[in-house]
Amino acid sequence: MRALLQIIASALLVIVVITLSTPAGAADPLPSWNDGAAKQSILRFVAKVTREGSHDFVPSAERIAVFDNDGTLWAEQPMYFQLIFAVDRVKELASQHPEWKTQEPFASLLRGDVKSALAGGEKAIAEIMMSTHAGITTEEFERIVKNWIATARHRKNGRLYTEMVYQPMIELLAYLRASGFKTYVVSGGGIEFMRPWSERVYGIPPEQVVGSSIKTKFELRDGRPVLVRLPEINFVDDGPGKPVGIQTHIGRRPIAAFGNSDGDLQMLQWTAAGTGPHFCLYVHHTDPVREWAYDRASGIGRLDKGLDEARMRGWVVVDMRTDWKRIFPFERD
Amino acid sequence: MRALLQIIASALLVIVVITLSTPAGAADPLPSWNDGAAKQSILRFVAKVTREGSHDFVPSAERIAVFDNDGTLWAEQPMYFQLIFAVDRVKELASQHPEWKTQEPFASLLRGDVKSALAGGEKAIAEIMMSTHAGITTEEFERIVKNWIATARHRKNGRLYTEMVYQPMIELLAYLRASGFKTYVVSGGGIEFMRPWSERVYGIPPEQVVGSSIKTKFELRDGRPVLVRLPEINFVDDGPGKPVGIQTHIGRRPIAAFGNSDGDLQMLQWTAAGTGPHFCLYVHHTDPVREWAYDRASGIGRLDKGLDEARMRGWVVVDMRTDWKRIFPFERD
Repeated sequence: MRALLQIIASALLVIVVITLSTPAGAADPLPSWNDGAAKQSILRFVAKVTREGSHDFVPSAERIAVFDNDGTLWAEQPMYFQLIFAVDRVKELASQHPEWKTQEPFASLLRGDVKSALAGGEKAIAEIMMSTHAGITTEEFERIVKNWIATARHRKNGRLYTEMVYQPMIELLAYLRASGFKTYVVSGGGIEFMRPWSERVYGIPPEQVVGSSIKTKFELRDGRPVLVRLPEINFVDDGPGKPVGIQTHIGRRPIAAFGNSDGDLQMLQWTAAGTGPHFCLYVHHTDPVREWAYDRASGIGRLDKGLDEARMRGWVVVDMRTDWKRIFPFERD
Repeated sequence: MRALLQIIASALLVIVVITLSTPAGAADPLPSWNDGAAKQSILRFVAKVTREGSHDFVPSAERIAVFDNDGTLWAEQPMYFQLIFAVDRVKELASQHPEWKTQEPFASLLRGDVKSALAGGEKAIAEIMMSTHAGITTEEFERIVKNWIATARHRKNGRLYTEMVYQPMIELLAYLRASGFKTYVVSGGGIEFMRPWSERVYGIPPEQVVGSSIKTKFELRDGRPVLVRLPEINFVDDGPGKPVGIQTHIGRRPIAAFGNSDGDLQMLQWTAAGTGPHFCLYVHHTDPVREWAYDRASGIGRLDKGLDEARMRGWVVVDMRTDWKRIFPFERD
């Protein structure tokens, strides 16, 4: 026994030596961020809330960080990826729906004319979403999403959608978790559309994904319990819905919030209204070459009121073009 | 530096010696459970899903355990404790509502006649709940619950309600967490009624509490964001609602489920329908001396269909009188 203990103690000694001989801060936790005000603000905030004994120390259990998804963690142009998923589903389901050949918005979609299909506004989008997202069980829907996300590719560059995530934000998620934060997605997108891949891509498990949803219903089918997805909106996790979704799912106020559009403004306001230290950040899409450039006038991901409020309140605004060394993981160094 | 490292290594050696010299299994993780079939089933299940390499091994991230609250983690007689909270609130608010003196169900409540007040059935209960749980912000409600739970006492024994928790279940929660499980409350009770004390009493943080809810609305009041509680049902987390609540909040199927009434049956069915190993347990209230005895005919916590199904499917049924050495933490050894 004593020999065994000595071996263990020696092994532990080696670990201690290795740990102590690595200079603190040698590894940059955010290598895809250019050194600038945005990066420095993040590092300063994390340092102060994690320094025990400091006035700004926040216990690990309360280090809640919330991230919008579309336009904040992955791209959202030329339209939300979930809408592209829905359009692909319409094409797949068309053979079971001969009536769609003459019925809008499906007829336009099947002719490849997405623009005309969406001209019907929210009503058209709701019809597309319900016909493609409801009427099946949660297990079937999960299988369909997993298959699509593993194979569908973006028109612009032929990449998988899960490759069109922002490398600097992936690093930020990992850095926050390594600093004792619990990271959440809080998205206007569908909660069950994100969960099948959020853990693999973002390191965020299903129970830390908050999103919009349709109603579901418990049923016994031949004695086997299933949850059936119904064509009825349950919750819209956007704008003023985001603080509601946060309260419902997390039950604590975040201390850090990250978004990119006016739909994230109330989430940032809610976070900023906490009594302790907090951090609010907007990603501003300013790079038409490597990504897209859009803000106040954009139909998707509009950032207008939020940009004004961020400037007025001193929130961090990331300039993608100058703050991010690399945007997508597939870019060369 | 070398001297420092030697001190650290020596300290680690001491820790190793202490750890290794405690005989494995010396500490019983469930000391308030009598040795019997129920306790052995729990120990066997935990052993098999945590043994790496075994056919039944379940990765820690998937070790989700869900617990009903009323009657499973704490007592529920002579009526749900949240209803007692609501009655106390009615009395507190009465001076602001002179009309309640003549208006049912409030008039009966204010005369101390709870039975007549509840004779109005679900409609009466809904009126009591809405008048006492809505119309205030989430922060105000949290403060009210915290104050009540710290001071209100049970009529039968003068104990705080948080003392009327089941010691064997508290040990079970801790044992499962020590075995890599994530423990959740999934209750028909109000989610915001449980969160203010669930972490302190059960070790379950707010984000792992699932329950019934009323709608809330984001508002800016003098520029300050608040969430206002509205007098409108949002979600009923009972019966067939429990698997829905689990899917909404957790997004994974539990592998272990614990309940005490027919309102938990669908949660147990949903858990039992998983493809891997699973564990379902009913607490059966059989001890009229130390607690209460009730099942098939009880208005509160009825266990009828669930008892039949548990016996048919071989789920564990805890006989409180014989399986539990101690029921409440305040009982003497």
